[in-house]
Amino acid sequence: MTTAAAYALTTPDGRFEKTSIERRDLGPHDVLIDIKYAGICHSDIHTARNEWHRTRYPCVPGHEIAGIVAAVGSAVTKHRVGDRVGVGCMVDSCGKCASCLAGEEQYCTGGGTMTYNTGVTEEFQPGGTTYGGYSTQVVVTENFVLAIPEGIGLDVAAPLLCAGITLYSPLRHWNAGPGKQVAIIGMGGLGHVGVKIAAALGAEVTVLSQSLSKQEDGRRFGAQHYYATSDRQTFKDLRARFDLIVNTVSANLPIDDYMRLLNLDGTLVILGLPDKPLSVQPFTLANFRRSLAGSMIGGIAQTQEMLNFCAEHGIGADIEVISADGIDAAYERVLASDVRYRFVIDAATM
Amino acid sequence: MTTAAAYALTTPDGRFEKTSIERRDLGPHDVLIDIKYAGICHSDIHTARNEWHRTRYPCVPGHEIAGIVAAVGSAVTKHRVGDRVGVGCMVDSCGKCASCLAGEEQYCTGGGTMTYNTGVTEEFQPGGTTYGGYSTQVVVTENFVLAIPEGIGLDVAAPLLCAGITLYSPLRHWNAGPGKQVAIIGMGGLGHVGVKIAAALGAEVTVLSQSLSKQEDGRRFGAQHYYATSDRQTFKDLRARFDLIVNTVSANLPIDDYMRLLNLDGTLVILGLPDKPLSVQPFTLANFRRSLAGSMIGGIAQTQEMLNFCAEHGIGADIEVISADGIDAAYERVLASDVRYRFVIDAATM
Repeated sequence: MTTAAAYALTTPDGRFEKTSIERRDLGPHDVLIDIKYAGICHSDIHTARNEWHRTRYPCVPGHEIAGIVAAVGSAVTKHRVGDRVGVGCMVDSCGKCASCLAGEEQYCTGGGTMTYNTGVTEEFQPGGTTYGGYSTQVVVTENFVLAIPEGIGLDVAAPLLCAGITLYSPLRHWNAGPGKQVAIIGMGGLGHVGVKIAAALGAEVTVLSQSLSKQEDGRRFGAQHYYATSDRQTFKDLRARFDLIVNTVSANLPIDDYMRLLNLDGTLVILGLPDKPLSVQPFTLANFRRSLAGSMIGGIAQTQEMLNFCAEHGIGADIEVISADGIDAAYERVLASDVRYRFVIDAATM
Repeated sequence: MTTAAAYALTTPDGRFEKTSIERRDLGPHDVLIDIKYAGICHSDIHTARNEWHRTRYPCVPGHEIAGIVAAVGSAVTKHRVGDRVGVGCMVDSCGKCASCLAGEEQYCTGGGTMTYNTGVTEEFQPGGTTYGGYSTQVVVTENFVLAIPEGIGLDVAAPLLCAGITLYSPLRHWNAGPGKQVAIIGMGGLGHVGVKIAAALGAEVTVLSQSLSKQEDGRRFGAQHYYATSDRQTFKDLRARFDLIVNTVSANLPIDDYMRLLNLDGTLVILGLPDKPLSVQPFTLANFRRSLAGSMIGGIAQTQEMLNFCAEHGIGADIEVISADGIDAAYERVLASDVRYRFVIDAATM
């Protein structure tokens, strides 16, 4: 086994503390990764603080992992020692269900294994719970290890493993591209990557943000238009404008108001998980044959496709690198929307 | 002008009374139709009784019209005297907006004209309001007149002009066909036609009805499976089963329960317009990338395609023909779900 440093919470209202954890011995298909960077995702905060009521302590979050392959099992063919690699939200799936066979492992019905906070055997992860990327090493089966292409820094690549694929997958699924009017609601950790990817895909991109405070950044990321949703006029001016609206905000928005911004056959996709049910008027859907949909991250093959696409188009997250002792402070700043646009922990500081 | 007999309501809580109305003189592109049959749609009742608060009296409902061409304007090329024809929910649209140019006239933003209860000029319809199919004649511009193919009776064809296209359009749009699991919620006037069309398209069809009372009919119409939604076990047994669920019921159903019956990339389409907003849990959408959508009737070209398809597959509505003095009684039976499956007024009784 490999002893790794990690930062963990042991109670919902505690502070992160340095600890050490064991990573399993390499099986024939396993890859040992020296973690270099780990992004901080809003869902790390929900989980670490038990806001979703399913947290197993100690909790080591982190599912935006970038690093270097340190060792490989005897049968590994996909990765070699020294390779630049990443790990996202999943570290295993059943491989047999319809979703897995369709390459949509994120919808595995046979018991998928998330990168942290999933109950597993001691053989899989000593301690019986998966521990994520707030750590110096991780062992992951080769099929769930992604190659990070040259030409994209490991630090700015790390957030792509969750934020990147979470946006890329719906943008591709609903055909964002030339001639399409795409709106991104919210320009935070998810949204800013969404603007970059949608623009690179060739769509005409509009940001719908609470205020205009990040407008300059939005245009730099590739948005042609930028509107404040605090201004009611926005909802009049943009009526029936969009083919696709991607909602990256977890707050309880008035979805019906946004749905009416969709044109014929338009779709509004929610990526965040507000705590209240969504409410939509039947006529809003029936008119223009609109759809309200959801999407969760993306499959492994598509995650690789996304990384290749981002490298080709020079897309990384805009990040602020922090040391491991700054996680608590970073969480507070994420909650205050005081980050442009993603915190990334430098694992060398652990 | 042509004087036609018609059945009208003059107040929301009145009874239908025979009256006479004028139909406009034939313009160069107009078609005068001798109405033979007119179906009774649930929305006729909502409108006639002012339940949607926009009713103009006198109200002559009816948008499931089948008849014979009696005369044509000088420039008409699409229809000839003696042709079997139909008229559905629309009698005109702007022809210039994006929806019209896309052949989706039902989403016209330039001012579409519905078959009844739309305010129009006196030149369009003496009286300033469109009057529908509960009448002996109607004048309609040739582009909104459909050909009813030989091999399908005018009586069983009439309900296809609304119920038929309302089901055909979403079934086609969301690719009902071989290898697809399709559920139809409700087996009334809309649903029974939906079962027939979905089965003819090659899908594996399941009916989700309140009870099993119409099971035998459902199987005769082409359904392979029939479940009672009053039985909670139904929602366990069918979890993640369907690619497409078409909801023909206007009541306020627990949509979230039905959404969970959708498989990967499945869509639930609402056709009725319940009076309360739809409520759906964000996670229900995010898991399996599900969609909640709406649909309204269909475009003119697709309506013709539907009629041709139904004729080819021997599909008509299952109907009960009534005389015009029986409209009030028929309305009560529709509200009591006491009709298998569509009332059709015989215009010869007017």
